[in-house]
Amino acid sequence: MAQTSHDTSLDLTLDAAALTAQLVDFPSPSGEEKALADAIETALRRLPHLTVDRHGNNVVARTNLGRAERVILAGHIDTVPIADNVPSRLDEDGVLWGCGTCDMKSGVAIQLRIAQTVTEPNRDLTFVFYDNEEVAAHLNGLGHVAEAHPDWLAGDFAILLEPTDNQVEGGCQGTLRVHLKTKGTRAHSARAWMGSNAIHKAAPILAKLAAYEPRTPVVDGLQFHEGLNAVRVEGGVATNVIPDECTVVVNFRYAPDRSEDEALAFVRDYFADCEIDEFIVDDHTGGARPGLNHPAAAAFMAAVGGEAKPKFGWTDVARFSALGVPAVNYSPGDPLLAHKIDERVKVSLIPEAEKRLSDWLTS
Amino acid sequence: MAQTSHDTSLDLTLDAAALTAQLVDFPSPSGEEKALADAIETALRRLPHLTVDRHGNNVVARTNLGRAERVILAGHIDTVPIADNVPSRLDEDGVLWGCGTCDMKSGVAIQLRIAQTVTEPNRDLTFVFYDNEEVAAHLNGLGHVAEAHPDWLAGDFAILLEPTDNQVEGGCQGTLRVHLKTKGTRAHSARAWMGSNAIHKAAPILAKLAAYEPRTPVVDGLQFHEGLNAVRVEGGVATNVIPDECTVVVNFRYAPDRSEDEALAFVRDYFADCEIDEFIVDDHTGGARPGLNHPAAAAFMAAVGGEAKPKFGWTDVARFSALGVPAVNYSPGDPLLAHKIDERVKVSLIPEAEKRLSDWLTS
Repeated sequence: MAQTSHDTSLDLTLDAAALTAQLVDFPSPSGEEKALADAIETALRRLPHLTVDRHGNNVVARTNLGRAERVILAGHIDTVPIADNVPSRLDEDGVLWGCGTCDMKSGVAIQLRIAQTVTEPNRDLTFVFYDNEEVAAHLNGLGHVAEAHPDWLAGDFAILLEPTDNQVEGGCQGTLRVHLKTKGTRAHSARAWMGSNAIHKAAPILAKLAAYEPRTPVVDGLQFHEGLNAVRVEGGVATNVIPDECTVVVNFRYAPDRSEDEALAFVRDYFADCEIDEFIVDDHTGGARPGLNHPAAAAFMAAVGGEAKPKFGWTDVARFSALGVPAVNYSPGDPLLAHKIDERVKVSLIPEAEKRLSDWLTS
Repeated sequence: MAQTSHDTSLDLTLDAAALTAQLVDFPSPSGEEKALADAIETALRRLPHLTVDRHGNNVVARTNLGRAERVILAGHIDTVPIADNVPSRLDEDGVLWGCGTCDMKSGVAIQLRIAQTVTEPNRDLTFVFYDNEEVAAHLNGLGHVAEAHPDWLAGDFAILLEPTDNQVEGGCQGTLRVHLKTKGTRAHSARAWMGSNAIHKAAPILAKLAAYEPRTPVVDGLQFHEGLNAVRVEGGVATNVIPDECTVVVNFRYAPDRSEDEALAFVRDYFADCEIDEFIVDDHTGGARPGLNHPAAAAFMAAVGGEAKPKFGWTDVARFSALGVPAVNYSPGDPLLAHKIDERVKVSLIPEAEKRLSDWLTS
């Protein structure tokens, strides 16, 4: 890690592309965000139009202009582990390579540039920089701020600067993971009739999964696409033993018109006839409606142009949704490049996104 | 291990129960049979009516009296690993405890007693003592002798002194293990429709297994009982990934009226409609017919009394069967106690079995 060689202050007068490179060269894998949070806090405290708060390694800055609406621009400052892809490298085709270029230091650079340049926005602004997004949900800095200081996250509309290739992606689907266990009785496989085979008992579960037809509802104008899938199956004791247990791990990705309770009820009901011995909820986070019918969101869509798409994966927009703040994802990174060793971003897209946001917030 | 404390010679003049204890106190887990093979060879070479051969740690002794029939008494001299259950202990109820009491040093004691006492048998006798039965098939000493010296194993009928609770158990079922693999395409589980789920593709395999009805054919007068079972299932990459591979490991235990080719054809045919992407034969050993219709076997059954039962598990009788020698299992141990830490044998059963064999071979 190049912790000793980089400058530990940030220069918000750089253009967004150069600032992205500066942020990438400031390593901050999850759990090691303190130095970057310090630098962001220091840079923001120099801006007289902002008030700045900090909770752990989460920094929140706000304008307080008494505008009719408040918009939140949020981004996580951590990255996945560095894989010999820092410092950044700009190639001759205008592509910036390195850990976090796409997910999501290009987005963080845009936040910082807006904070620096849009001193008199037409809507009050809240900037949220948070840690530990790339690791377990209970560590997520946005979740910690929401719990400790929900008032810091008050607003009418939130933009999460997660990679979307400069297209607005609205809402997110919920995700439920359950373990469906069948039980049997062990026996030597030479005398199978002395036992009962738990793997065979899982046959109806797989049959139901294979027969599943996904629902594709339109929610707030965006078409979602549900999915019900086995993501793991395991059973077996030894090659000469009738197995007494089999587990099918099922992941249900569901559209944001279902509540968490409704999603769980659907899955329970869907497998009700399968004689499952244990039904264990392993993980569950609800989705978020796109909220594009909100006036601030509509104005944002009109400003950035293009057509909004649904976000199928789960993102932190759901945390804003839970706080009653409609939220979308928008930033230059290509979502398919996130977390890759060859992570990169086309630098021309960064000032383009910055300009669209800036225009919307000043026109 | 009590290797230093026991006497390294065997006393074949002891009764069969005392000789069993002496053998148990002579530790010989698989791979460490040399000292016991030496002791057996030395003891047998003292008997002038026998010729003795040795191959590795396998000892074969024969009478050569020109009788019309030749009977083989075979037993393995290795045990499973010792689990703090040696030396042996005789309790006040006449039960001898210790590693190998049941599987199968009580049987080996009977072989040695017959070798010592039946000096003029009515049928020529071959005694086979072999190593490495409790470990991988390719190490099995009986297999090595069959390959190197098939003439040493010539005979009309073989008795394998594996535990059967002094009941004749005839033949054995074959066992075939196959891996049935289905293939799909990985995708993020939030966009499942971009991939194809290999676990779902395994649904028809489990359905066929669950619907299987075992055949229970009567072969040479004994009723066998087939079985087709999943003994393992595994699939899954990560909890947010559509899995691209699933494997169901299936064990087919089949009656000895099917050849190996027929058993394999049955399994291929049974799953023919399941769209399996890879069908891998992992392990296959054929069964053995009981052979109880052979005159020597019929005479043996008449002598020992009781009703023969089928042997469901695979045993070394199949090796004799492959050499054209009908074979049965017969000895005092309770097969359900084999390989247990509390392995034991009721000592009164040992001379009883010895006497039945001896009477049959001298009457």
